[in-house]
Amino acid sequence: MSKLAVVAFGGNALLRSGQKGTYKEQIENVENTCQSLCALLQRGYNVVIGHGNGPQVGNVMLQHEAGKQAGVQAMPMDFCVAETQGSIAYMIEMGLRNVMTRKGICRDVVTLVTQVSVSADDPMFQNPTKPVGPYYTKEQAESFAAETGAKYKEDPKGNGWRKVVASPKPLRINNVDIVKQLAAAGHIVVTVGGGGIPVVEENGSVRGVEAVIDKDLASALCAVEIGADEFYILTDVPKVYINFRKENEQALDTITVAQAKQYLEEGQFAEGSMAPKVRAAIMFVEHGGKECIITEAGQLDNPSCGTRIVK
Amino acid sequence: MSKLAVVAFGGNALLRSGQKGTYKEQIENVENTCQSLCALLQRGYNVVIGHGNGPQVGNVMLQHEAGKQAGVQAMPMDFCVAETQGSIAYMIEMGLRNVMTRKGICRDVVTLVTQVSVSADDPMFQNPTKPVGPYYTKEQAESFAAETGAKYKEDPKGNGWRKVVASPKPLRINNVDIVKQLAAAGHIVVTVGGGGIPVVEENGSVRGVEAVIDKDLASALCAVEIGADEFYILTDVPKVYINFRKENEQALDTITVAQAKQYLEEGQFAEGSMAPKVRAAIMFVEHGGKECIITEAGQLDNPSCGTRIVK
Repeated sequence: MSKLAVVAFGGNALLRSGQKGTYKEQIENVENTCQSLCALLQRGYNVVIGHGNGPQVGNVMLQHEAGKQAGVQAMPMDFCVAETQGSIAYMIEMGLRNVMTRKGICRDVVTLVTQVSVSADDPMFQNPTKPVGPYYTKEQAESFAAETGAKYKEDPKGNGWRKVVASPKPLRINNVDIVKQLAAAGHIVVTVGGGGIPVVEENGSVRGVEAVIDKDLASALCAVEIGADEFYILTDVPKVYINFRKENEQALDTITVAQAKQYLEEGQFAEGSMAPKVRAAIMFVEHGGKECIITEAGQLDNPSCGTRIVK
Repeated sequence: MSKLAVVAFGGNALLRSGQKGTYKEQIENVENTCQSLCALLQRGYNVVIGHGNGPQVGNVMLQHEAGKQAGVQAMPMDFCVAETQGSIAYMIEMGLRNVMTRKGICRDVVTLVTQVSVSADDPMFQNPTKPVGPYYTKEQAESFAAETGAKYKEDPKGNGWRKVVASPKPLRINNVDIVKQLAAAGHIVVTVGGGGIPVVEENGSVRGVEAVIDKDLASALCAVEIGADEFYILTDVPKVYINFRKENEQALDTITVAQAKQYLEEGQFAEGSMAPKVRAAIMFVEHGGKECIITEAGQLDNPSCGTRIVK
């Protein structure tokens, strides 16, 4: 039987800082990332792709804000995440189809628009910390907060005020059994885009919520629920490091969950960067996954690439 | 074995003219449409849903245009259609899940982001006629046309100049076999949103094109390719009429393909309104479909509703 891998792409695999973010640039970026992924396909893996949407959903929110002046209603986070699931998946599907054709790989690529359930009682809703969307003046932020009930916080770098939303824990991935079946049939499945569209289930009813689910944690949950053998988290460095960017910097080859927890406690990994990836890796391995590999996309053709987190 | 139906929703099933288009309104509209759909589910049908995106993609294009001032790149049609596939499908999935829960119906709802191939040689590309996006002044339109190669035409009602794109014939629906399998397993599948993301395949490579595929025609092609028994086109009138809104107006119960063609030739059906629906109905029946029913959503609980187009 084929091995099953979940691969989490960063949102910046498509939309890179320093670029303008043109259509052409995004298509080229995604083709480059998909190129690397083919190494796994050529080794016979079945593959499920999760992806981030940080820069993309930021742009969508700027567009919604700007569009108000043209009379178009601005929509909440869940709606915006759904939009990015459509557009990013389209580019991944197209990029992957093109790269596979050139390499003679014959697989279908299929994307599921994916809702992910969180708890309405998640403590993160009491303390939203994830800044999203445009910067505002203090007065604008106060006015929007009074109008909508959303929370705004001042940017520590002094760029103004931004809306902050909760980052609750993913609990259940809608249609995950279908993801599993499609992957087992050899199709490449794109799912949990941007960490999934955040919804809560209450009294048998589903509703969207203003939140952002960490895409690595949602991908880890997906990997657990479909029984993936391996979970790859793609980032912009080849390995995980301790004493990062210090004189005694050390790249890690293989670490156990216990070691990973120890390093986390020591503050070795930056929040908003490597720390959430290591937590997602721990989550996967603690729930039965064999190993999680954190590496950069270009390393996937090397079977011993990256940092491996094992039991 | 369960009967298989494809149901095409209009884009205005969610975003109604006369409303502001708030999030709450859209959620309510989609729940109303999904309510009606349950009649088919309760009669044991397997169901595939296609949907339009006219008002939605218009809004997305306005937002992209407005967002330029905030430094966000405006994206082409194919990208915008992909965004609406994500957001509309999310609302259909949520609405349908909620309505089904209340009625005690147990089915998964799953959405595939869907590319639809058209021919680069489709004659419609020589004569784009479908107006999309914001209105501009003549000077703006000429400047954009020179910059991007896109075509602009003056609005006949004098509102200004708008971009016009081609409406080519849908040739192939990507992943249609997966749609068929999922539907056969009893899942409700949402696909070909907005007529599908328009792409052309050339030399083994896929690329997006600036075009809008008619959603009824794309849904008809989907219905043919998955071997649907029935094809429902939902609109805002209960039946198809001849001599519409004249003294001798007559509602049609059942007509043959030959009669439908005759009426089309006589100009009985308005272009941009009933005519493309009747053409999609003919396409379905001529390619082996049993019957196409054109009706309004609220009539679906009546098994003899609407106008039936048969061989």
